[in-house]
Amino acid sequence: MKKTTCEIICVGTEILLGDIVNTNAQYISEGLARLGIDVFYETVVGDNPERFGKALEIAKGRADVIITTGGLGPTYDDLTKETVAKSFGRKLVLNEKCLDDITCFFANNHRNMTANNKKQAMMPEGAIVLENPQGTAPGCIIEGDDGKIAVMMPGPPREMRPMFDNLVGPYLRRFSDSMLFSRVVKVIGLGESAMEEKVLDIMESMTNPTVAPYAKSGECTLRVTAKAHDEAEAHALMDPVIDEIRRRLGNYVYGVDVASIEQIVVEQLAEKGESVSLAEVGTGGQAAKRLYGTAGGDKVFRLGMSCRNFWEMSSLFEKQMGTVCSDDSLGRVAAYFAHGIAGLTGADMGLSIIKGYGTVYFAVVDDMNEKVETYNYPSSRDDEYVGYIASSRAFDMMRRFIKGY
Amino acid sequence: MKKTTCEIICVGTEILLGDIVNTNAQYISEGLARLGIDVFYETVVGDNPERFGKALEIAKGRADVIITTGGLGPTYDDLTKETVAKSFGRKLVLNEKCLDDITCFFANNHRNMTANNKKQAMMPEGAIVLENPQGTAPGCIIEGDDGKIAVMMPGPPREMRPMFDNLVGPYLRRFSDSMLFSRVVKVIGLGESAMEEKVLDIMESMTNPTVAPYAKSGECTLRVTAKAHDEAEAHALMDPVIDEIRRRLGNYVYGVDVASIEQIVVEQLAEKGESVSLAEVGTGGQAAKRLYGTAGGDKVFRLGMSCRNFWEMSSLFEKQMGTVCSDDSLGRVAAYFAHGIAGLTGADMGLSIIKGYGTVYFAVVDDMNEKVETYNYPSSRDDEYVGYIASSRAFDMMRRFIKGY
Repeated sequence: MKKTTCEIICVGTEILLGDIVNTNAQYISEGLARLGIDVFYETVVGDNPERFGKALEIAKGRADVIITTGGLGPTYDDLTKETVAKSFGRKLVLNEKCLDDITCFFANNHRNMTANNKKQAMMPEGAIVLENPQGTAPGCIIEGDDGKIAVMMPGPPREMRPMFDNLVGPYLRRFSDSMLFSRVVKVIGLGESAMEEKVLDIMESMTNPTVAPYAKSGECTLRVTAKAHDEAEAHALMDPVIDEIRRRLGNYVYGVDVASIEQIVVEQLAEKGESVSLAEVGTGGQAAKRLYGTAGGDKVFRLGMSCRNFWEMSSLFEKQMGTVCSDDSLGRVAAYFAHGIAGLTGADMGLSIIKGYGTVYFAVVDDMNEKVETYNYPSSRDDEYVGYIASSRAFDMMRRFIKGY
Repeated sequence: MKKTTCEIICVGTEILLGDIVNTNAQYISEGLARLGIDVFYETVVGDNPERFGKALEIAKGRADVIITTGGLGPTYDDLTKETVAKSFGRKLVLNEKCLDDITCFFANNHRNMTANNKKQAMMPEGAIVLENPQGTAPGCIIEGDDGKIAVMMPGPPREMRPMFDNLVGPYLRRFSDSMLFSRVVKVIGLGESAMEEKVLDIMESMTNPTVAPYAKSGECTLRVTAKAHDEAEAHALMDPVIDEIRRRLGNYVYGVDVASIEQIVVEQLAEKGESVSLAEVGTGGQAAKRLYGTAGGDKVFRLGMSCRNFWEMSSLFEKQMGTVCSDDSLGRVAAYFAHGIAGLTGADMGLSIIKGYGTVYFAVVDDMNEKVETYNYPSSRDDEYVGYIASSRAFDMMRRFIKGY
């Protein structure tokens, strides 16, 4: 069987004007890659039926399935259905079920339905209707007599994404005999090349699953991707490889398929039923914001303090901790701050981050132990970036502190 | 003269796989819109010379200028120059100047140059070379004998963007007899429809400049866009309209062509030579992070404190301020916190934000005055979003406080 190929056509003058970034194309492409369906071309065209019609004919000449987004709205320039239906030799007919759904949508959202919303209930004859609980524009699929297929979805991402995930993806599944499944191993504290060196033989020898490294914002990841018929088969392929990677990278791995390092720390604290307060100098409170903002963070985060200069913070701890010595290293000051903030706020643990020139110092303490580490940053990096990486490093130190190594 | 049209072709299998969002197309589209050059189609194609060649021929059939990104790298699958040169009947020849630049780039960055980097110095005969100080891949322009033009730029945005802004944009200027210039009026505290109502007659009657409203993240903007030959002409068209908009919207306008509300506040404080400390409850310290992170913010920001529950913070101010009464309204607690944080840290001003159920309370104080305001938020919004909008509202209150209204 010849492999089915897909082309994506995004319809919208606002894309051609650069008013919005075409995230729809990326979302659909990623979904199709996971489904194992090849995409060779993507096209963007404005709200112009003549030019869209030409793009559609070109696409039909080089792909089996054409997926469009946009142009399903109620206004006069929304002409996707009309243009595609014409190309497939279908008439538009009123779909009573769609009309009911649209009428309900307006009633439920306390908005007035206008006459041209009725246009959204017109569907190509014989089309498969794709319901859109998020909005007023249903999508549809035309299966052409020549074997070509057109899938039409609305443009707004919050309507398109669930329609693709819940309806279009499952429909397209039949055109592929294997799907891609991925698991992601997350690493902090090891550079990309150092990580690669430890697993290079795996990366080079494996074909299913494949193992690919990726570095971003102070972390490294190894993406393990298997081609399989279902999830169980994929796991059977991937899990031994993940185990071997974990064995080689040891404690540098902070998690597999986890959202972020702060998520891990929040889960560790929640499990122990403990809280943490943070003192930050020169990072704008970035670590506190990340910790507080992650799922469950508000349960374990007690208080965060941030300032530009550590002298301004040290005065707050003097009563309880004594004066910080002017010849103390910044590492010692960091420990002083971690103890200070935990004591001042009654938290079980204290975490401090002090951004100095070229080096960030961080300390984590509880009532028994303390740990101090540093991170050297390149001067070319901006404050936001350094603050982000320093926060990640500090969270990773805390993860290891809690785990006892 | 027939108007010149442009087509963008982005080359890269990673885009078709959905690994990256195609921000290059958006950036170039926006630049071309500003230059007054029409774009009717955008295409994405993988690193495959045959398919790219076909897309190129289609583009040459429907546009005058083809702009490509990607495929200028040193590896075997980077074939943009080869494919375009072939289509235009040009040979690739070694460009000594390019080779020197690339050799220098490697020397300056302490990296080893490999044999295939030399491929990047091969240029189509007669091409205009586009220097790339950010990387190793120069771009180029071929002016075809048939009047068609191809502009090739590298794929990494940090290389492509300056090349487009500094070299390609000025080159393309000749194909348009008027450009678009925009100014943006920024508004907080007035909803989009209320804003529209006040300026609807201007929006409906003006054609050059046009006036378009836009709402995002708790702010509204009015974008005033003029079509003109140069900036002076554009300003002459736009400025009277902006003056009229300012007159109608009054103090709701916090700035024109300014980066953000926090930027305005930082500039006001810097002008007065004053500092501010912040106390936040339930926002994860978002306001402090925004203030600290904006240009010059570190000069005026003294200390920020954030916690999840206001009882945890109030104990820190008790010694200096007395106990907060349990029957005080949250508005009074906000004022107490603003005084408390300013006093505790010796800042000239104090700003507090307390996120309650459905309402955010904020207070700003100096040693003479205080101001308390509230913002009601819809329960459907997530914490991050509410924190962001509440911060914007609090900054806007502070702007008005400093201005004396």
